[in-house]
Amino acid sequence: MARGPTAQGARTRDAILRAAADLASVDGLEGLTIGSLAGALQISKSGLYAHFGSKQDLQLATIETARQIYTQEVITPARDAATGVNQLLALSDNFLSYIERGVFPGGCFFANAMAEFDCKPGAIRDRIAELQAAWMHTLQRAAADAVSRGQLRPDADVEQLAFEVEAALLSANWYIHLFSDTSYLDRAKRSIRSRVESNCTSRGRRAIESPVPFQTAIAPPAGT
Amino acid sequence: MARGPTAQGARTRDAILRAAADLASVDGLEGLTIGSLAGALQISKSGLYAHFGSKQDLQLATIETARQIYTQEVITPARDAATGVNQLLALSDNFLSYIERGVFPGGCFFANAMAEFDCKPGAIRDRIAELQAAWMHTLQRAAADAVSRGQLRPDADVEQLAFEVEAALLSANWYIHLFSDTSYLDRAKRSIRSRVESNCTSRGRRAIESPVPFQTAIAPPAGT
Repeated sequence: MARGPTAQGARTRDAILRAAADLASVDGLEGLTIGSLAGALQISKSGLYAHFGSKQDLQLATIETARQIYTQEVITPARDAATGVNQLLALSDNFLSYIERGVFPGGCFFANAMAEFDCKPGAIRDRIAELQAAWMHTLQRAAADAVSRGQLRPDADVEQLAFEVEAALLSANWYIHLFSDTSYLDRAKRSIRSRVESNCTSRGRRAIESPVPFQTAIAPPAGT
Repeated sequence: MARGPTAQGARTRDAILRAAADLASVDGLEGLTIGSLAGALQISKSGLYAHFGSKQDLQLATIETARQIYTQEVITPARDAATGVNQLLALSDNFLSYIERGVFPGGCFFANAMAEFDCKPGAIRDRIAELQAAWMHTLQRAAADAVSRGQLRPDADVEQLAFEVEAALLSANWYIHLFSDTSYLDRAKRSIRSRVESNCTSRGRRAIESPVPFQTAIAPPAGT
């Protein structure tokens, strides 16, 4: 029988990849070498080679770890907490909180990876593009849900709105770090509220002012 | 007497720095080594060492070359062509044109440098932060000029507006390259027009529809 990875081996691999994601958020995925990672973790290079066959394998596995963290920190809590326009705002707020709390020491892992690989065709760019498109789609779906609930106007351009929300989030990510100035969190929040509210119906504005807990929001109307 | 640089030496240095800025826009300023540059230019490493004492000297000189190109491509033509709200829009349009024309092969040199150095304290980050702040100030000044001309509302928040304009420009820069999709140029343009117009007075809207050539705009009223 083939030997599967042991539980301890899986834990070691998880710890390596978490350290790799932290390092890559500062030094870039190209700066991520078996050598730099072995140094940061104080383990032997040969120990690392046993886990990852090549630099590209290590980079792709690091992206997968970062994706799980991003989902857990930003996406899942928003989906669990709210629907429609409030889910869209919760996704934005969670992103800004993830930056503010320094989940990755170099800011948003994916903003960095996008900036590093946007002009470098290959497997890494393809994966980053897939994940960035999935995130944009998550924002667009929340906006489309808000349209179907009558919270955003029927003619709201959900792709344009998602682009504008994401633009404010991304720029806050750079400026907070470049200028060591957390006031950009508020700038981004104001920008996003204003973009969303400019597309709101009166029902949408009421929903923002008095968000309904998710479980109530999806329950059928009383008496049905 | 000390020997000054010859005209030919200055031309060689300019050519090296232009190639360095192109390379750095794709591979990053940290990826810029005397070795990689010598390879790209097909000249000897020792020839390069004669021009630049250290990697940091080379990086700072490359940033200065990129600054001159950015000023020439984006800022000066907008300042020469228009005032107030139309200057603000011209700055944005020129930025998008500079991306579209691929002035640097890796997209905006400064967007890349900001993403690379935002979390790396030191002389390079300080210089990038200074130049990024100067660019934001250029956008803010155009917006403030539009306020003083009665084109934007007196209570317009020019810092917030500059942040939102720049957010759309930066994000277009990443997405155009990551997704190989130039439709983000139009998305950014729509976002910026909408942000600017939402702050416009009726005079501002008329100025956008019928821009007045710069020389006319600054001439004193007839008869004075």
